[in-house]
Formats: sequence, structure tokens, C-alpha cells
Amino acid sequence: MTYQPPVRDHAFLLRDVLEIEKYADLPGFEDAAIDVVDQIIQEAGRFTSEVLAPLNAVGDKQGCTWNPDHTVTTPKGFKEAYAQLVAGGWPALGADTAYGGQGLPHVVNLSFSEMSSSANMAFSMYPGLTHGAYSAILNGGSPEQKALYLPHLVSGNWGGTMNLTEPHCGTDLGLLRTKAVPQADGTYRISGTKIWISGGEHDMAENIVHLVLARIEGAPEGVRGISLFIVPKFIPDAEGKPGARNSVFCDGLEEKMGIHGNATCVIRHEESTGWLVGEENRGLALMFVMMNEARIGVGLQGIAQAEAAYQAAATFAKERLQGRSLTGPKNPDGPADPIIVHPDVRRMLMDSRAVIEAGRAFLFWTACRATWPTPALTRLCARRAMTTWP
Amino acid sequence: MTYQPPVRDHAFLLRDVLEIEKYADLPGFEDAAIDVVDQIIQEAGRFTSEVLAPLNAVGDKQGCTWNPDHTVTTPKGFKEAYAQLVAGGWPALGADTAYGGQGLPHVVNLSFSEMSSSANMAFSMYPGLTHGAYSAILNGGSPEQKALYLPHLVSGNWGGTMNLTEPHCGTDLGLLRTKAVPQADGTYRISGTKIWISGGEHDMAENIVHLVLARIEGAPEGVRGISLFIVPKFIPDAEGKPGARNSVFCDGLEEKMGIHGNATCVIRHEESTGWLVGEENRGLALMFVMMNEARIGVGLQGIAQAEAAYQAAATFAKERLQGRSLTGPKNPDGPADPIIVHPDVRRMLMDSRAVIEAGRAFLFWTACRATWPTPALTRLCARRAMTTWP
Repeated sequence: MTYQPPVRDHAFLLRDVLEIEKYADLPGFEDAAIDVVDQIIQEAGRFTSEVLAPLNAVGDKQGCTWNPDHTVTTPKGFKEAYAQLVAGGWPALGADTAYGGQGLPHVVNLSFSEMSSSANMAFSMYPGLTHGAYSAILNGGSPEQKALYLPHLVSGNWGGTMNLTEPHCGTDLGLLRTKAVPQADGTYRISGTKIWISGGEHDMAENIVHLVLARIEGAPEGVRGISLFIVPKFIPDAEGKPGARNSVFCDGLEEKMGIHGNATCVIRHEESTGWLVGEENRGLALMFVMMNEARIGVGLQGIAQAEAAYQAAATFAKERLQGRSLTGPKNPDGPADPIIVHPDVRRMLMDSRAVIEAGRAFLFWTACRATWPTPALTRLCARRAMTTWP
Repeated sequence: MTYQPPVRDHAFLLRDVLEIEKYADLPGFEDAAIDVVDQIIQEAGRFTSEVLAPLNAVGDKQGCTWNPDHTVTTPKGFKEAYAQLVAGGWPALGADTAYGGQGLPHVVNLSFSEMSSSANMAFSMYPGLTHGAYSAILNGGSPEQKALYLPHLVSGNWGGTMNLTEPHCGTDLGLLRTKAVPQADGTYRISGTKIWISGGEHDMAENIVHLVLARIEGAPEGVRGISLFIVPKFIPDAEGKPGARNSVFCDGLEEKMGIHGNATCVIRHEESTGWLVGEENRGLALMFVMMNEARIGVGLQGIAQAEAAYQAAATFAKERLQGRSLTGPKNPDGPADPIIVHPDVRRMLMDSRAVIEAGRAFLFWTACRATWPTPALTRLCARRAMTTWP
């Protein structure tokens, strides 16, 4: 099937339902005029349908390949598409202008994300998790950490990941065993194994920034003893360029149905060098910045897949000839009518469309309230968004 | 996971809920005493869990292989398991004693089928479709056809298939184009392509009996011009043994998620030799014998997969340690409680179990009413079954 980006639906939602021009007077949003946003959405539709969608089946069938030197090769064409993504400035859409971002409302970024997730969910998870790592460091990192890492995560020439789950702990992070040992130079040595790490290793970015939950030696048990660390694959040198290889390794790929194009990794920290983000033992609160963003992201993935499925179903219903309409032939010159004439087929399509449109509206509205480039703006916008919905 | 056949649940349903002993006075059912049925169910549990379940993952990962000589190789171990199935007399359970069957109520066969479908759905479809072909010939075949084919389908040393769907017609069989040309010797030459044919070609049976819907030259258009034909892969010789290779070929395998161990085939009839079953142009009615049985079979597959999924979930919920019970630790010496202590996990498990048990009861009851070895018994039992349910 050919993915048709729902550009008109998105524009209608942003302009006429959410009225995002109401936010245009907020600091940093002078450029979010509706005609600019319209152009961005149209270009997003072009990029996702022309560049990402053709790689969806390739990614599913070919998948990622783990190599014995602990590198991962992405499916054919992914690397070139990722370079186009970075060149087009897409990862920077909703990011802070102080770090090279375009400072647009997160909901504009979400419009792009839905389209890229419909077109190629496996691919879209790479920049998706990078944006999550950006948000966590933006909220909790030191000025030096922000200056060092954020511009690269914003541009997308470095990737980001979320190292939470361990084989024995997923929802109950208080059980986690990954250990952090403080060093004289202020860094930590991290040891432990993380699983299900999306985008944990790949060949598309020049560096990968792992955000890792670990327990500092001697810390309390449970969730009150968890700290957050930055563990870059290549340790930035004095000029901030990728330097020495850190001892964090991908030990293999895991199976997640439908996203074979995304590298789902077992990640082993072998006394890897990490830098504490925020305060000791307060890591979970910071990780929740990333997790909350991921929650909106997972809702978005649901809408995106439903939209893609709806488009495939609607196209098929118009082409597939089976049976005759109850009210007389609608395709009298053909051997049968297209199945879209049957009431139950129409009902299923209409149900899908209603759920998708309502779900998308709710998702975009939530994004307007929840996630803006800075915490102060988020609070301001949350109050304002309350006035734009019944 | 290890599949645990629900032997006690099945026995309870047959003995105490459906009271199948009430049928024991019917002709041919003298041997269906409840203690005999109990033994059969126990043995069914052993066979399906010990022989079929270990091949489920093998079948999924390895799948079937199409060979350029139009043969299909089943996954490693399937052939040996199929030989055990035949040796154990399992395909004969619910079949007419006149053709070598054991003449037990179809619901006893269904108990075995549910277990084999839970243990290995891909495998269980081979005998499942064979039984459907048996039923169609039993209901519509000539005495000669019954004598020639039924003993082999009952024993399972020949397989059966259902050749309905063509690329342009699935639900709307009136559109089908496969053509049958009458020959002087009373046979027909069949030409056309069928798709999605489960078990259409494999290496486990010495012959495969295709039941094929086709249109006799000059027949009316639509469903009133469809006839049913027997097209054996090897044409039985004078002694009824597999003889000359018929010109029916598997041109490739198709993808159906979750049943890679079953050969889903594109089947090409290249002027294959076929024998008419029943009357000309009345094929659809006969095929509905097979399709109605398949409908009960598909309900059964749903129950069977739900049971397997429930077992996996329940086992995991008892082993996986995450969080603590709201009412205080239930595994105080461990790092966390098993997740079965959490109310929402218990609710999901209980929901599953309730749906499965009710669904199975409804399915078995329907089978009691619907499908017995002969049409006369089916009618008799349908009346009787009405008295055993509210």
C-alpha cells in the first residue's frame, strides 16, 4: 500500500480545533504562525511518505543484523534516510532554540512523529527515543552536560536511548541491580545488563548517548536508591567530539514483532564510564520526564498504526470485488461490487476513522498541555489549553 | 512454556455438564461409556503435550519448505509425529465405523482437537482439514467414492484439503473461474489456480485428496453453476493404491502468521483429473458440510489458543516477581511478590479463564447438536442436546 499522509486532517486539527495561533505570543513562538506550520506539515507528509514509507517493508523483512564486533547494521536504506532526516532538521522541530532547536510547539513535532510512525514505525523510534533523552537531560542535566550533549541530540547526529529494564525487573525498577561505583575524577563505573533497549546500537549516528538507571554503591534499596547516568558510546573529547570507545556493548538483538527495523538490544555495561545526571538517588524522577514523553509517544504509535491500517483497509475495500450491494449493483459492468458497498464493511471503516480522529484530537490536545520546550512554558500552556477544549 | 492439557476440565464438561452418557444408547455408541471417554481424553492429553507441543516452536521457526519439484518439506519432526498420530488412531475417533472409524461422538474428537490445536495449531490443521474432506464425501459421495477414499481419510494415511479460494474470489464464490471439462470416461479435466490451501502439499501422507470447487463448461454463472470434485494427488489404481501422479501442483507457499508449520499453498490445476461429487451445479451445498465443520473448527482454534495463552500468562504471573501486594508482602523472603498478587493481574487471568470455560462449554454443546457420524444421528442428537442445556 501507499501511505497517504493525513496532511489536511492535521492542519484542521492544529488550526481550527486546537487553535495553536493562540500560543503565538508566547516567548520563542513568534515563528509558529499557522502558515509556517502548514508548510511544515506538508513537508512532513512528503518526507515520511516518500523517504520513510518505502523502507518499511525492507526493515521488516531484512531487519537489523548483529555483528560479532558488537556493532549493529541497520536495514538497507535506513542509513541514507537517517542522514536525510538529520539534514532536514526534523529532530530539531520541537527542541529548545538555545541548543539548535526550532522551538516549535511539541504538538507540531507530534504531527511529524505520527506521520513517520505510520510510514515506518521501526525507523521512527530512533529519533523518538533520542528526543526523550534530550528532554531528560534538558530537565535535569548540568549546564555543562546540556552544552555538551543537547546540540547533538537536537540535530540527531547523536542518538539517545533509555536503559531501564533488566532481565528480572521491568515495572518494578526498585529491584534493579546495575551498579555505579564512584571514581576519584567524579565519574562512575557502571556494571550491569539492560534488555529491550530500542536503538541501543546502530550505524546511523556518530555517537549514542545512553541514559542509564543504576544504583550507586551503598545507596538505599528500592526506588529511593536509583540514580541516572549519561553513558556515551564514545566519550566526548576535549573538543566535544566522539573520542575513546566506552565499555558499553550490544550483546545481541531481541525479537519485537513488527519493528525488526529497530535494533532492540541487550546492552552490557562492563565498568562503562558514566556521568551522574541531577542528584544521587533521584534518578527515577528524572527518568519519568523521558517516560512521560514516551507515554504520549506510545499513544501516538497506536494512532499512527491505526491510521496506516485504516488506509490499507479503505483502499482494499474500494478495490476488492465481492458480492452485490443490497440496494442493487453499484458496479453493474463488473463481475461484482467493491466490498465498500456492504453495510458492515462501511461500519467497520467508519468505526476506525471515528476512533482515529477522536484519538488524534485527544493526543494532540494532551501534547499541547503537557510537553513544551521548558517547564515554565509547559505550565503556562497547560493553563491556556484548558480554555480551548470543552 | 509447557502445555498442560486441561484433562479434568474436559472430563467434567463431558461427564457432568453435557452428560454424554445420555447418548450411549444410540446405535454405534455402545462403546462411548464415560470411563472409556475419560481414558481417551487422558491419552489425548499425553499425546498432544508430549508429542505435538515440543514441535510447535520448531514449526514456527523452521516453517515448511517449498521445493522446485513442487513438493513441500514439513518442519523437522512433523513427519514422525504424523506417523504417531495415524498409528494412534486419532483421526478415526469421531468417524463412521463403516469406514474404519471409532464411531465416537464428534465432541470427543473435539476434545482431542482442542488439545492438539493448543499444543500445535499448525500441525493440528492437517488432520482437521482431512476430517472436513471426510465429512463432505461421507455426505455427498457415491458408494464407490466412499469405499475408495473414506478409509484412507479416516485413518489419516491420506490427507484432505479444501480448494475454494481463488485470487479474485474468497467470500463471493460465485465469481470462481476454475473450469471443469467433461471427458468421455466420466471424469473431468480441472484447470485453474486456488490460493490459501492449508495442507495443500506435504510429505506426511502417501496421498492428498483435494476437494475442489469448479464450474463445468456451460454451467450457469454465479453460485448455481458450481460443482464439487475429488482431485487426488495420486490417482488410485485398480487396487485403490496411489497410482499415477495427477496434474495438480503446489506452485509456492503463502504466509499466514503463526502457522508456519502448516503448508499454506498456491495450488495449480493443470487439466488435473477430477471426479464429480454429488450432482452437477450443486457443489456449494456439499462444500458447506465441510465449511460448517470448519466453522466449529475455527471456534475451537480460538478456544485452543486462548487456553494456551492463559496457561502461559498464569505460569508467568506465578513466577515473575515485581512489586508488593497491597495487603502486605506475600513472598517476604524474596525481593518482591509474584505479580499474581496484584488485583488487576488476577482480574485479567480470571477474565480469560471465564471466557475460555464458557466458550468451551458452548462449543462442545454446539458440537453435540451439530455433527455426528451420520445425518440421521445428527438430527437425533440435536433434539436430545436441547434437553441438556437450560
